[in-house]
Amino acid sequence: MADLPEVVLLDFWVSPFGQRCRIALAEKGVAYEYREQDLLGNKGELLLRSNPVHKKIPVLLHSGRPVCESLVIVQYIDEAWPDAAPILPRNDPYARAQARFWADYIDKKIFDCQTRLWKFKGDAQEQAKKDMIEVLKTLEAELADKPYFGGDNFGFVDIALVPFTSWFLSYEKLGGFSVEKYCPKIVAWSKLCKKRDSVAKVLTDPEKVFEFVQLLQSKFGAK
Amino acid sequence: MADLPEVVLLDFWVSPFGQRCRIALAEKGVAYEYREQDLLGNKGELLLRSNPVHKKIPVLLHSGRPVCESLVIVQYIDEAWPDAAPILPRNDPYARAQARFWADYIDKKIFDCQTRLWKFKGDAQEQAKKDMIEVLKTLEAELADKPYFGGDNFGFVDIALVPFTSWFLSYEKLGGFSVEKYCPKIVAWSKLCKKRDSVAKVLTDPEKVFEFVQLLQSKFGAK
Repeated sequence: MADLPEVVLLDFWVSPFGQRCRIALAEKGVAYEYREQDLLGNKGELLLRSNPVHKKIPVLLHSGRPVCESLVIVQYIDEAWPDAAPILPRNDPYARAQARFWADYIDKKIFDCQTRLWKFKGDAQEQAKKDMIEVLKTLEAELADKPYFGGDNFGFVDIALVPFTSWFLSYEKLGGFSVEKYCPKIVAWSKLCKKRDSVAKVLTDPEKVFEFVQLLQSKFGAK
Repeated sequence: MADLPEVVLLDFWVSPFGQRCRIALAEKGVAYEYREQDLLGNKGELLLRSNPVHKKIPVLLHSGRPVCESLVIVQYIDEAWPDAAPILPRNDPYARAQARFWADYIDKKIFDCQTRLWKFKGDAQEQAKKDMIEVLKTLEAELADKPYFGGDNFGFVDIALVPFTSWFLSYEKLGGFSVEKYCPKIVAWSKLCKKRDSVAKVLTDPEKVFEFVQLLQSKFGAK
């Protein structure tokens, strides 16, 4: 892969997982080449060669070497470019463990609920809505009155969650509920995050996300 | 939680996730109090209070503060007791990312295939067997001719996978296949790992695991 630029991101515009990596790269001030992938059509040869196990974006290529899985990539970015502000708290193993726990919670819960919300109808969709509200309320309780999940500094859990806030409008339209009613602190936190250039330049317009969700429904949803 | 010993592990004897933590603590030479939990009956108050989100073992309590989710715990152990041999490679972000990727792969794939193997019958069990063989072959290819997954030193991926080797006999009995036939390198690696005290003292006798699997089948399996 000698013909590649130093840092390349294989990604897909609306992916919350890819957006995590873009935010982390922006926070660290790392220049990179963005390469949009055709996920709904044919996956490219570089993607398949770089992530033969999962065949998924995002993939970060650094000096030609691939790193896969978004939370692994964000931690890699934090460790490979250590001079900029830390993403995971330095020198505090307990705070680092808490950050990893909550990022893992987001990974295990949000995308699953979100997929069930657009993919299913009827009782299964109703269950997805209930589950999503529970997950968001759990995150609301963890955030509590802190500005960011880790405290005073924007960090790992914020990066893990904030791309999903662009999907909140879709959750509301699909589920018929108000995220802000259940989770006012999460909504206030998302507005604070969006004041950062690293976040504002990366997140998708919620209306565009909903158009994409409708495309997903027409292709893969319950009829 | 002022009445607790310095380090406590809430665990369940046959859990591969709990065994990861026990191996990591042994590798670091950390003394701790082991507290067996009654998972099939009533979950204890300390477990529910320490892991209100998932309500699962293992939970590590260090100075009364809980850490949950086995891979988060193992990384915490590595960082909280940094003087002993490292579990994740130090000062090599790329090697650390690779280790996290493969541990995550094991987490996402093995337990799911294993559960479907004992829980289902007929076509669904046959699919679980095919998937499990594919997962093990993927790990075989990643191990290749290295002594350990990370190279010359026992580390994070080894700790993530080795407890599952006690379940191989159950996979073979349930699926009617030989792990060694498909994955001779994984079987040789597992024997090398078991030469370590930290592993040998923690892993469950495969026959006892199979008895436990039969108990699970009688309680929760397909009739």
